Amino acid sequence: MLRLPRRLSHLRGIRYSSSTPRFPCVEAHATRQSRIASSFSSSSGPEPPYARPNPTSYTVFHSQTPLPLAYHSSPLPTFDIAYETWGTLSPSKDNVILLHTGLSASSHAASTSANPTEGWWEKFIGPGKPLDTNTFFVICTNVLGGCYGSTGPSSVDPETGVPYATHFPILSIFDMVRAQFRLLDHLGVEKLYASVGSSMGAMQSLAAGWLHPERVGKVVSISGTARSTPSSVAMRYAQRSVLMADPNWNNGFYYDALPPHTGMKLARQIATITYRSGPEWDARFGRQLRPLPDDASPAETRVPALCPDFLIETYLDHQGEQFCLKYDANSLIYISKAMDLFDMTRPALQALRLPEAAALSESESASSSSSDLARHTTSHSKSHPPPTNPPPHLSALAQGLAPLARTPALVLGVQSDILFTIEQQREVVDALRMAGNDRVVYYELGGVWGHDTFLLDVLNVGGAIRGFLS
Amino acid sequence: MLRLPRRLSHLRGIRYSSSTPRFPCVEAHATRQSRIASSFSSSSGPEPPYARPNPTSYTVFHSQTPLPLAYHSSPLPTFDIAYETWGTLSPSKDNVILLHTGLSASSHAASTSANPTEGWWEKFIGPGKPLDTNTFFVICTNVLGGCYGSTGPSSVDPETGVPYATHFPILSIFDMVRAQFRLLDHLGVEKLYASVGSSMGAMQSLAAGWLHPERVGKVVSISGTARSTPSSVAMRYAQRSVLMADPNWNNGFYYDALPPHTGMKLARQIATITYRSGPEWDARFGRQLRPLPDDASPAETRVPALCPDFLIETYLDHQGEQFCLKYDANSLIYISKAMDLFDMTRPALQALRLPEAAALSESESASSSSSDLARHTTSHSKSHPPPTNPPPHLSALAQGLAPLARTPALVLGVQSDILFTIEQQREVVDALRMAGNDRVVYYELGGVWGHDTFLLDVLNVGGAIRGFLS
Repeated sequence: MLRLPRRLSHLRGIRYSSSTPRFPCVEAHATRQSRIASSFSSSSGPEPPYARPNPTSYTVFHSQTPLPLAYHSSPLPTFDIAYETWGTLSPSKDNVILLHTGLSASSHAASTSANPTEGWWEKFIGPGKPLDTNTFFVICTNVLGGCYGSTGPSSVDPETGVPYATHFPILSIFDMVRAQFRLLDHLGVEKLYASVGSSMGAMQSLAAGWLHPERVGKVVSISGTARSTPSSVAMRYAQRSVLMADPNWNNGFYYDALPPHTGMKLARQIATITYRSGPEWDARFGRQLRPLPDDASPAETRVPALCPDFLIETYLDHQGEQFCLKYDANSLIYISKAMDLFDMTRPALQALRLPEAAALSESESASSSSSDLARHTTSHSKSHPPPTNPPPHLSALAQGLAPLARTPALVLGVQSDILFTIEQQREVVDALRMAGNDRVVYYELGGVWGHDTFLLDVLNVGGAIRGFLS
Repeated sequence: MLRLPRRLSHLRGIRYSSSTPRFPCVEAHATRQSRIASSFSSSSGPEPPYARPNPTSYTVFHSQTPLPLAYHSSPLPTFDIAYETWGTLSPSKDNVILLHTGLSASSHAASTSANPTEGWWEKFIGPGKPLDTNTFFVICTNVLGGCYGSTGPSSVDPETGVPYATHFPILSIFDMVRAQFRLLDHLGVEKLYASVGSSMGAMQSLAAGWLHPERVGKVVSISGTARSTPSSVAMRYAQRSVLMADPNWNNGFYYDALPPHTGMKLARQIATITYRSGPEWDARFGRQLRPLPDDASPAETRVPALCPDFLIETYLDHQGEQFCLKYDANSLIYISKAMDLFDMTRPALQALRLPEAAALSESESASSSSSDLARHTTSHSKSHPPPTNPPPHLSALAQGLAPLARTPALVLGVQSDILFTIEQQREVVDALRMAGNDRVVYYELGGVWGHDTFLLDVLNVGGAIRGFLS
């Protein structure tokens, strides 16, 4: 088969095929690729934006004591945890709230004098706000595995002098929380007033109460889970797949080269779909078309193209672009994997290198047989009765959550959340109550914002937190 | 920064970083890539599997009469439509069911003597089955834009002698249906007993009844929509994005080279997430791990990896692999775009090059003002009352669907469908009833299969069809 030279293509008679097809979205991406490549090959050497955090805007706790890891026999020999604080630590150090982040957030939950830019939970933290800094001392860390000042795959391995990349160990949510408690030890904080988190932060919040029941006064779990479902694993797997398929990912060894920004952009587009919900987009975008480019003739008949036509498409494109050089690809892979692996059923906990899990066996032989669990049904509120015939995984989860049996807990979920579904919220509540916890407060929110509700709905989410903490 | 030579890496002390990280999933993909590349460079020339359909297993209708297109002033000069049939055409040709396919299906809906392999709706077509071939003559086509015998981007452009690729015109669902009616004309079928379709097929089914109210006796729309939502556009956009980001896609000009099989695999993984639902995967996969490879030591402690650990991950991987060379990437892009563009509200229809849309204006000035629409509420069944205050887009949809006001219609939706949500099913029903149709049958199914229910639930889906057609 012969192909006509492109310069002859204008001779073709059919209008829709009369010239070489143009793909402005593909061209824009190529232009961007060149611009990024030239910035990375400049004399200052490769330095992606996420490697340029402002180290004066947060404090770094450096630990020389090795950190045991849930999936490995060797500990992490040393590690850093970046953190920020708001409010004033009381003399007895009894007013501390440890705030956990979602997957990709930094320690910058709210503005500070050192860094006045808005934080990711700006409306929730401050004097008179739900995390009221007139009362509480709030600590937020960048998680272990992250790229905003805490040790992660982009950090230099002290043994080799080069970034860990994928030599970094697979992490557990429990590893992240143990690193945070090292920070608390360092700060002399014996007991938290509360452990608070949303999304992955809710996993950490539960894990904190589980690891140290005596050191955590209250637990707040917003739009989280105690056991990742196959659907949420699938959505994160799709993101890791597009990222790992980017040739720039290079098995994780890209720190002296161009990072996999295309894979990151595509991964973020998929993530964005899981964070928001249909009804919000119906109202916000509907079927509106993107504005035509400035050079389009006003009389031009609008013919659809294979590149984005709808506002929802340009929105996703923009979300991907914004994120793709802001966050380290390996951090995304490691932390999303840690979320997939999170499972607080007793057998799953016992398969980890967690000394605390050994106690689960003991407590079982002592008291927590399934018939004992059934007796705890009196702790259920009338508005959310216990399952009459709990499935095996729910009983296993109740057994795993036994250390949380006496910790007051707020669980809050959103009915339009497709990533951490409302069924998972109910599962956490059922399991805590079956474990004997009679101080579980549970709210379900309506609304159209899906998983991102925790970032947006200060009235309902903030109000629930305020009420529970007071 | 210096990197240790890899041969020294075994000297490192930490177990999890003691050797070069291996990524079996990445290696498997590279191996596959080489295998595909070598098969494409063999002496027989590049020939992907989708280019090797068995042309003796279906019939091709070839039209030399140009086909007008909804988005272009120039028609498609000639085109082929591949089709298969089941049952016997009655002497008066009054027993014909036109069955429409989903996005990527071929005309092979059920086994035939020419092609005894199972079809995609095998359980639904045959003697005594829901599409009962003792009574009906069933026709199924490969859609215009497809790659299984009908004209699409992989077809040779008669003007150039090479495949259209992205010179192919943007298609509308209406174009696909107009091509099908050319086939019906050719077969001498004046009137369909029914137009039946699921998913994208439901769009075509509604479009058939709309284009030719006098030629379509009944309409069946299963898990479809009359107006694609931004969420469904987003899910398809994510698929097109990963595909168009594959360098092998090459702006669509890959027919003399390696096709974008990686992008196709990744796109199919995303699609698979939208086709099934959480509850099914909970039951089917839960948190089961994939089996260890045969060469794994039985005593080996299982440490999670960045490559797939969970069965759900290997399932998605397998779904992607199975599909990636079975279907033409450009067909996927064009047809998924046609789905995004589908919108039967009156203004959207009037923006197309459809002579039939002109009649909508006339009927408006005659009778279908919004106050008229309100009077039609008596046609609503008690089990599904009409919206008391319909949003503007619903009124616009009712106005657009006016030509379907007298066609008996079965609408069936699935509550666990995240791609064509149950709200969209209700929207179709509301709009048809508001348009004055008092013969709309509507069912909602529960169950865990999500969008794919139409492929699986022969009892409920098949039963509804059988009842409606008889």
